[in-house]
Amino acid sequence: MQVDKTQESIEDLQYKGLKVIQNKALFCFGMDAVLLADYVNLKRGDRVLDLCTGSGIVPILLSGREKASEIVGIELMDYVADMGVRSVALNNLQDTVKTVNGDLKHAHRLAKGVFDVVTVNPPYEKVNEARHSDNAYRVAAKHEVHAKFADICKVSNRMLKCGGKLVLIHCVGRLAELICTLTAHKLQPKRMRFIYPKAGQKPNMVLIEAMKDGGEGMVVDVPLYVRKSGGDYTDEINRIYHRNEDA
Amino acid sequence: MQVDKTQESIEDLQYKGLKVIQNKALFCFGMDAVLLADYVNLKRGDRVLDLCTGSGIVPILLSGREKASEIVGIELMDYVADMGVRSVALNNLQDTVKTVNGDLKHAHRLAKGVFDVVTVNPPYEKVNEARHSDNAYRVAAKHEVHAKFADICKVSNRMLKCGGKLVLIHCVGRLAELICTLTAHKLQPKRMRFIYPKAGQKPNMVLIEAMKDGGEGMVVDVPLYVRKSGGDYTDEINRIYHRNEDA
Repeated sequence: MQVDKTQESIEDLQYKGLKVIQNKALFCFGMDAVLLADYVNLKRGDRVLDLCTGSGIVPILLSGREKASEIVGIELMDYVADMGVRSVALNNLQDTVKTVNGDLKHAHRLAKGVFDVVTVNPPYEKVNEARHSDNAYRVAAKHEVHAKFADICKVSNRMLKCGGKLVLIHCVGRLAELICTLTAHKLQPKRMRFIYPKAGQKPNMVLIEAMKDGGEGMVVDVPLYVRKSGGDYTDEINRIYHRNEDA
Repeated sequence: MQVDKTQESIEDLQYKGLKVIQNKALFCFGMDAVLLADYVNLKRGDRVLDLCTGSGIVPILLSGREKASEIVGIELMDYVADMGVRSVALNNLQDTVKTVNGDLKHAHRLAKGVFDVVTVNPPYEKVNEARHSDNAYRVAAKHEVHAKFADICKVSNRMLKCGGKLVLIHCVGRLAELICTLTAHKLQPKRMRFIYPKAGQKPNMVLIEAMKDGGEGMVVDVPLYVRKSGGDYTDEINRIYHRNEDA
């Protein structure tokens, strides 16, 4: 597929001056990536791996938080990974954030069992649900064409330290399967938060934190509402979008 | 353990004139049983099996709803099952509600694969968490002394028709384990609802509906709050307690 690079734009994240390069002809990051980054409990010195990193939105947002010692993003599609490399350079984050162009299933060639945190905003839909699209990038972002959720769990287990955390966002419709697959890969769900479009509606997305080799017992956090009944963002969404703005 | 029968009382359920016999020296039903009964989608003519039925609170509450053709409750403890038999008689429900004194692990001796709905308000805690108590009834109601959650799933799968529903209430801390155990027994979670003590607090209980041999895909319902910030019951809890009062 030919990429129209004239469709590239620089998105100002309105957060500590950070920016990310996007190409609107392909696929742009959504609120899920922002909510995912916010859900990560990051400690100073953590090593972070972001799977399906796209043009690097999650690593770039995390770089504005507690100082991780290293944030590595892996992206399969070479043009998208190149946008990621350029986004990192644009923010002068090369010392902390690395973008790797490759298949996450080979991530263990980088280093095994060393990451404190793995993040992923994976494709939500199975391949058999894939609708025809002329946009291979959008299909790969939305459908499990290149990696299934079980692959993501397998990689996460390999890459995390014992006690390290996988933090992900996914659709609620697959929750039972997600929990079973995580558990089968010794990634114990410890914390979950449901995202509701607004009060009175069912949640459509869920944030999950799972601990490698974690013990039993988990909590569900209070609901996260995206919009007020009038349609405006809730105070919490505004806080997340402008997190640490005054820091 | 000697039972002090003088501690028996008749609880008026404030609902269609229904009553249940309890013994306050042992263990009384709580809000969980009432929320569980409310979460059941009952259709006219359904056959229902209630495991861990105690003195029959769930069957008696369900009997006031759409006409089930048969509601069978199983209770291991003979004195408690006897309270159940007397509660059913007190309400003249003998035509619909049967109380069986026996071990749920032998429920298949009654009839296999014929129930549309199985309900259960099981013990929430594992045996290794059991604190010492001089009250064998309370221990059995709260701890998995006589049946583990996997036993309940095994029995439910055996007793349900294909497509039949297991409806249960449990503690959130065990959610990941519950979902994995249900799924391992071909009971696919289709609907869940979290119960929050009040807004701003994390949920402590969860209602789950799982379908025997169900396909993928599930929903999470809107939150159920028990109390308003001032401490009064929410309108929804009042509605549930007085469901169909005017019917």
